[in-house]
Amino acid sequence: MWTYEKKLQYPVKIKCPNPAIAKIIITQYGGPDGELGASMRYLSQRYTMPYKQAIGVLNDVGTEELAHLEMVSAIVHQLTRNMTMEQIKASGFDTYFVDHTAGIYPIAASGMPFTATVFASKGDAITDLVEDMAAEQKARTTYDNILRLVDDPDVRDPIKFLREREIVHFQRFGEALRVVQDNLNSKNFYAFNPEFDRPKCK
Amino acid sequence: MWTYEKKLQYPVKIKCPNPAIAKIIITQYGGPDGELGASMRYLSQRYTMPYKQAIGVLNDVGTEELAHLEMVSAIVHQLTRNMTMEQIKASGFDTYFVDHTAGIYPIAASGMPFTATVFASKGDAITDLVEDMAAEQKARTTYDNILRLVDDPDVRDPIKFLREREIVHFQRFGEALRVVQDNLNSKNFYAFNPEFDRPKCK
Amino acid sequence: MWTYEKKLQYPVKIKCPNPAIAKIIITQYGGPDGELGASMRYLSQRYTMPYKQAIGVLNDVGTEELAHLEMVSAIVHQLTRNMTMEQIKASGFDTYFVDHTAGIYPIAASGMPFTATVFASKGDAITDLVEDMAAEQKARTTYDNILRLVDDPDVRDPIKFLREREIVHFQRFGEALRVVQDNLNSKNFYAFNPEFDRPKCK
Amino acid sequence: MWTYEKKLQYPVKIKCPNPAIAKIIITQYGGPDGELGASMRYLSQRYTMPYKQAIGVLNDVGTEELAHLEMVSAIVHQLTRNMTMEQIKASGFDTYFVDHTAGIYPIAASGMPFTATVFASKGDAITDLVEDMAAEQKARTTYDNILRLVDDPDVRDPIKFLREREIVHFQRFGEALRVVQDNLNSKNFYAFNPEFDRPKCK
Amino acid sequence: MWTYEKKLQYPVKIKCPNPAIAKIIITQYGGPDGELGASMRYLSQRYTMPYKQAIGVLNDVGTEELAHLEMVSAIVHQLTRNMTMEQIKASGFDTYFVDHTAGIYPIAASGMPFTATVFASKGDAITDLVEDMAAEQKARTTYDNILRLVDDPDVRDPIKFLREREIVHFQRFGEALRVVQDNLNSKNFYAFNPEFDRPKCK
Amino acid sequence: MWTYEKKLQYPVKIKCPNPAIAKIIITQYGGPDGELGASMRYLSQRYTMPYKQAIGVLNDVGTEELAHLEMVSAIVHQLTRNMTMEQIKASGFDTYFVDHTAGIYPIAASGMPFTATVFASKGDAITDLVEDMAAEQKARTTYDNILRLVDDPDVRDPIKFLREREIVHFQRFGEALRVVQDNLNSKNFYAFNPEFDRPKCK
Repeated sequence: MWTYEKKLQYPVKIKCPNPAIAKIIITQYGGPDGELGASMRYLSQRYTMPYKQAIGVLNDVGTEELAHLEMVSAIVHQLTRNMTMEQIKASGFDTYFVDHTAGIYPIAASGMPFTATVFASKGDAITDLVEDMAAEQKARTTYDNILRLVDDPDVRDPIKFLREREIVHFQRFGEALRVVQDNLNSKNFYAFNPEFDRPKCK
Repeated sequence: MWTYEKKLQYPVKIKCPNPAIAKIIITQYGGPDGELGASMRYLSQRYTMPYKQAIGVLNDVGTEELAHLEMVSAIVHQLTRNMTMEQIKASGFDTYFVDHTAGIYPIAASGMPFTATVFASKGDAITDLVEDMAAEQKARTTYDNILRLVDDPDVRDPIKFLREREIVHFQRFGEALRVVQDNLNSKNFYAFNPEFDRPKCK
Repeated sequence: MWTYEKKLQYPVKIKCPNPAIAKIIITQYGGPDGELGASMRYLSQRYTMPYKQAIGVLNDVGTEELAHLEMVSAIVHQLTRNMTMEQIKASGFDTYFVDHTAGIYPIAASGMPFTATVFASKGDAITDLVEDMAAEQKARTTYDNILRLVDDPDVRDPIKFLREREIVHFQRFGEALRVVQDNLNSKNFYAFNPEFDRPKCK
Repeated sequence: MWTYEKKLQYPVKIKCPNPAIAKIIITQYGGPDGELGASMRYLSQRYTMPYKQAIGVLNDVGTEELAHLEMVSAIVHQLTRNMTMEQIKASGFDTYFVDHTAGIYPIAASGMPFTATVFASKGDAITDLVEDMAAEQKARTTYDNILRLVDDPDVRDPIKFLREREIVHFQRFGEALRVVQDNLNSKNFYAFNPEFDRPKCK
Repeated sequence: MWTYEKKLQYPVKIKCPNPAIAKIIITQYGGPDGELGASMRYLSQRYTMPYKQAIGVLNDVGTEELAHLEMVSAIVHQLTRNMTMEQIKASGFDTYFVDHTAGIYPIAASGMPFTATVFASKGDAITDLVEDMAAEQKARTTYDNILRLVDDPDVRDPIKFLREREIVHFQRFGEALRVVQDNLNSKNFYAFNPEFDRPKCK
Repeated sequence: MWTYEKKLQYPVKIKCPNPAIAKIIITQYGGPDGELGASMRYLSQRYTMPYKQAIGVLNDVGTEELAHLEMVSAIVHQLTRNMTMEQIKASGFDTYFVDHTAGIYPIAASGMPFTATVFASKGDAITDLVEDMAAEQKARTTYDNILRLVDDPDVRDPIKFLREREIVHFQRFGEALRVVQDNLNSKNFYAFNPEFDRPKCK
């Protein structure tokens, strides 16, 4: 279980409303490679992971992604809390506004609400960890694209922090994968799945 | 942000694998009225809620629902961790197994992966709180149905706990709604939205 | 069954094409809190509702929502029937136009086609009616937002009518809920579901 | 607008509960070729159809499909209203029951809730009518398959009625298509779209 | 199986980047009536089609649609390969760019990723072929709309080619339908399905 | 473009109908890690890949996955072509049959039709190749699970072939990734994206 600590993992202090970029950044909450999918991917995969160290990584990173989805939500909120009707219309934020006002809702920049089909939990240690490495690269790319699109330093600063964390996570999943591969008897590499083909209880 | 505490909110100790009911209970992770939707609904709504007390309720309940999705995951995991191929086929769990082995994945009992379209974050204090009351009744009904379908006392016990919590949450959202309605000047009830139509900063 | 009467519930007479707001208003046909979802929610819930008066409300309101989806369609049609290619491109309506020309299609403003996941039919009288109350608040909020975004009085007039009706429906579902709660023996409140746990026929 | 008449278009009187076939028949409410999609397809297409006779067909058939979705709902309701927990589990209806009890909800037999992506409203008279003819064949095929799967004469009787109506609708859309093609100047067949490329008002 | 030939079915040579129209044209890759759905519709339907000539048409057209989805991808790629950040923002392409950079991804213009719900494979020869005729009309309409929206002759030229092919395919499916109808014994027209109700092997 | 060669990449000769396993295997056509998603992932990613050798791998593997989706379709077809109504009902295939008869349609075993949200095309060479490596592991796991569930040697044989190919593809993408990493100036590793941040034409 989790306990809430009333602070963001990294501070978010945005002075100017800007719905044009809010519309883009929301994708890192509910989009295909966003923090909600990331968090649920790792927290879900914990249950069948056969090695302690890898479970620890999934738990840590999954918990940290919860902090990230809170940061992304805070960024979008601060970008939209004092916007005017003119800004809403001029920025194309109206298609979001009509259904959510200035509320936070997990949706892709393209307009598709979050769907769990964007991530996998396959019950196979190697597969899940390679999936996780890919996920971190995908999130990193999206943050790269946000940095290409956004000029406001108040926004760029926490986005850079989030981007850096994805690279750290990528490394950690890479290390966890090495641990798993070392543990698997090289002879039956891919020939059995320790998540499922383990000795049955009687 | 959240910190992880290595225990479940309420203990889950299931002795016998039973994929037939795992297939049903998974719906309270990723189904239409499950704990993932619940948690994200409340945590998302915090940002525009105008009154402190109501924010507190959203924060508390949203955080507790994270603990619940972990409990539901643990129940499904314990029901599937030592199942045999015969049990998988006989129970109809094979349609889940083929894509997820015994991994945990947020999907409805019907087979539809989690989608955020099942919940609303409307940026309107009254609307969001009535939505939340409805959500708690819907989750309560699903737990009622699980209790109608499941005999194993090891499973029924944590499900009963989860069901009770939904009723408590329903009450808390009802109280928060009263606070909001008391705060709103009765004259402009529904005529303005404190989440959005507030004095703009200059 | 229903018989068609060749008139709108409330007149829609729009003089100027305006695809920019058509793109927004279509959400009340096919969006998360639109009239198609509303109508199907109430008409679906009729079958298991245990008390006559509540069934009557569901039937009346569900039928009226059919009239509303026709009104919303007529609004969108009148806003798009004589638009020019320049208006289409300048307004961002081109992403709709390419796939539907000026045809009417139930889609959210965000671009997501209608999905029934936005509503619930839970087979539990209390739950369904609280869901319905939330639905009316959500629709009311969306109409509020349309009124914030739209200036044309020809459009605002029928939208105001539709918004008013949602408030009336909210009241009616509130009354139906009271009737249901009065009918349920207070002792087994929540302990059985009259929709499902009734005496079985032999 | 529509007025409700308290009777089914064709009587439904089913004596024995049978969730195994309810699970199949629900697809004609919310499935890919079901009556909800059919009704919304035709009622949506009315607005841009350029010829009166074809509009009349769309209006009549769209209205009749509302009666059909009510009949399908009634069939599913009568097949599930007095089922036992044993029947629910043995029939595989439990995956539906857990989220909807015995409530009616528009879902495909496969488990996917209704989505408007199954139909088109293209704003082109020829295209929409060929789409409609295809739709009627698809619905007819689904009813054929239900008749292959269901033995109970109480159920087969209204299903046969519904199947027959699809064939009649197919003919009517075929006739409407001929009318449209006769009206279009053969020279510019496909070269302009009367729904959109019409003289603009000044 | 298929072998790749390193050339496009028809040349695509676009000189000027233009993300505004790339955003529209991508719908013919992943949108409701795009080439991906077309190809998979015909290739899937081959298996149960009972007559050789109709199988040949499905195979030929399905294979050609693969060439078309490659052409549409090439058009979108050439329209986006050298765009500037200013063009991306001014054109509204930013909602696509943030998640896919300038990569090609099958999505509708509206923002909904490709879903197979847009096509049918019903296992009934008549139904499948009428579905295919409708599909070709829908694709033709979308190309008509693209031609209404796009001025660049470098883009219009391959789009006109694609549009023409849809009309040819429409004719070919019409002929295949006639063959199927001639083969079916007129007495049991619609009364049995040669795809399914054939003599069983022992 | 592609030319069709009238043979399967590897022979499929199944003697006994078995809808119970057809229901499972169809997931490798339209499921989350199936061959349709695989093929479209690789063919889509070709356009922005900056190095020739990696483009070649994407093209080869994407084309081979088309052959695989044909093989999976053939397996499902041969497993369902002579099934009886009793087999359909007993195996739970009825929920598929009602909407598709014995036609082939790309759907997950869980019942969700194919959606492109299961794969990514991010326009970043490193990201796309790690995504591809993960994809191959996910497909390999699904084939492992099919082999755990299926006894019929006629079915196991082509499934084993398909599984082996995924491992070969995994290696090839790993090699392509090394090529890309060698080409990228190590200093600006991750600091620019050669797919997008390249010298602009004037």
